[in-house]
Amino acid sequence: MIDPKADAIQIGLVSISDRASSGIYEDEGIPALKAWLEPVLINPWQGFEKVVPDERQVISQTLINLVDTQQCCLILTTGGTGPAPRDVTPEATKDIAERELPGFGELMRSVSLQYVPTAILSRQTAVTRGHCLIINLPGQPKAIKETLDGVFSAVPYCIDLIGGPYLETDENVIQVFRPKAALRPPRT
Amino acid sequence: MIDPKADAIQIGLVSISDRASSGIYEDEGIPALKAWLEPVLINPWQGFEKVVPDERQVISQTLINLVDTQQCCLILTTGGTGPAPRDVTPEATKDIAERELPGFGELMRSVSLQYVPTAILSRQTAVTRGHCLIINLPGQPKAIKETLDGVFSAVPYCIDLIGGPYLETDENVIQVFRPKAALRPPRT
Amino acid sequence: MIDPKADAIQIGLVSISDRASSGIYEDEGIPALKAWLEPVLINPWQGFEKVVPDERQVISQTLINLVDTQQCCLILTTGGTGPAPRDVTPEATKDIAERELPGFGELMRSVSLQYVPTAILSRQTAVTRGHCLIINLPGQPKAIKETLDGVFSAVPYCIDLIGGPYLETDENVIQVFRPKAALRPPRT
Repeated sequence: MIDPKADAIQIGLVSISDRASSGIYEDEGIPALKAWLEPVLINPWQGFEKVVPDERQVISQTLINLVDTQQCCLILTTGGTGPAPRDVTPEATKDIAERELPGFGELMRSVSLQYVPTAILSRQTAVTRGHCLIINLPGQPKAIKETLDGVFSAVPYCIDLIGGPYLETDENVIQVFRPKAALRPPRT
Repeated sequence: MIDPKADAIQIGLVSISDRASSGIYEDEGIPALKAWLEPVLINPWQGFEKVVPDERQVISQTLINLVDTQQCCLILTTGGTGPAPRDVTPEATKDIAERELPGFGELMRSVSLQYVPTAILSRQTAVTRGHCLIINLPGQPKAIKETLDGVFSAVPYCIDLIGGPYLETDENVIQVFRPKAALRPPRT
Repeated sequence: MIDPKADAIQIGLVSISDRASSGIYEDEGIPALKAWLEPVLINPWQGFEKVVPDERQVISQTLINLVDTQQCCLILTTGGTGPAPRDVTPEATKDIAERELPGFGELMRSVSLQYVPTAILSRQTAVTRGHCLIINLPGQPKAIKETLDGVFSAVPYCIDLIGGPYLETDENVIQVFRPKAALRPPRT
């Protein structure tokens, strides 16, 4: 008997918001992340969902657990990237990073700038830790979709390069890119 | 009797140049900054003007005084952002920063690149310190105008987010952006 | 009798690759760098060619020698800028840098993004050390050409500003930019 979860990949979904984490309002970040990922990923996958306050130590510890213990190959955070004093997601992300990939932040700001001039206020970035890629996304569901549409094409090959699992995606939904030498036969 | 300066906002205008500060030539940076701001801002405002040499400690101390003592909510610097050994404005700015906002530097270089290929040599950035936003601008009056035209749309909302005063601008001169929830009724 | 090498400029060409340096395959990076530079530069120039493994200390020491001992005014590196664990060129470059020029990395990623979405995975940058500009380029010959085409216009003036020699280029091959005040009469 085949266990369909046997080769499931682990993905962390982290919503960072004082108000959502204290129940003042309902979190919209994680539902937006899931709604984006579900039609895209062909691999079976397991989401680890966390809603945490804008506390640098709490965010960092959450990311460490998701990478080191839960073996996530991809973590998407949402919220906490602006200039306000409570916005500490980029700091918390860099605190536990091995590598920063500045091209993600540059492209995400550039994409968002097509919609709002205040896109330049975002300090969002992406980093690697072990075999995991961690990407900071904006807090608004609409902006989550716009930025994921903009950068996800590079995500599967990035995860290949850092030794993570081979992500497969539905090419009718999004075009991802790998050099020919990195391609494997599609899952059947 | 109403004091028209009662709610004036404080803005620092800092020209950084060995030659202008020693009187070898007349400073053109501060006049260019004022000429740009005057038609834009509706709030009454008071400018604190400083012409300083390309000395890291002097620049940093000038910025600290303008934020911590003069209570500026916005500081515009001009000059000292290139790769030459005497260009130390970005270092002096980061020395006293709480947060760096990399999107400003990225967009300013991208805007200037439409005019000159050497725009990529600028190391200009923007940072926050307390309730103040500090932006490094180029030295040339023409380039000051081009870059302010490019980034100022995001400035008022940034100052809102860091707890500064509510900046109002003449929408016939420049379009600024705030999310609807951040808008207040216009000054009459 | 005139020595045509009397005023030759020194340029470092550094290919960073475990496999090329160990002889597993032939280096294609340095030939691509030379093929790009030869039609562009009018100055007589001497290339210092190094093929080194992806070892942070080895790369840093190679760059130090090329700047401090060989008096290079320009060093082009190729390879080692991705997110893989062995990719350490940007770290090694920043280790020995005096100044980082973020506009180079931003523009190179932006240029490469026109060809492949995975361009955002590159962490390439440019820095100065003394009178030398050091630029990290991608590893693929095609991408080397694309990014040099994109950024070289700003290179000669950058080297002027940091006190290096006056680079002259064939304007039929590439347009470089200097402000009028920085122009000298052409070499005859």
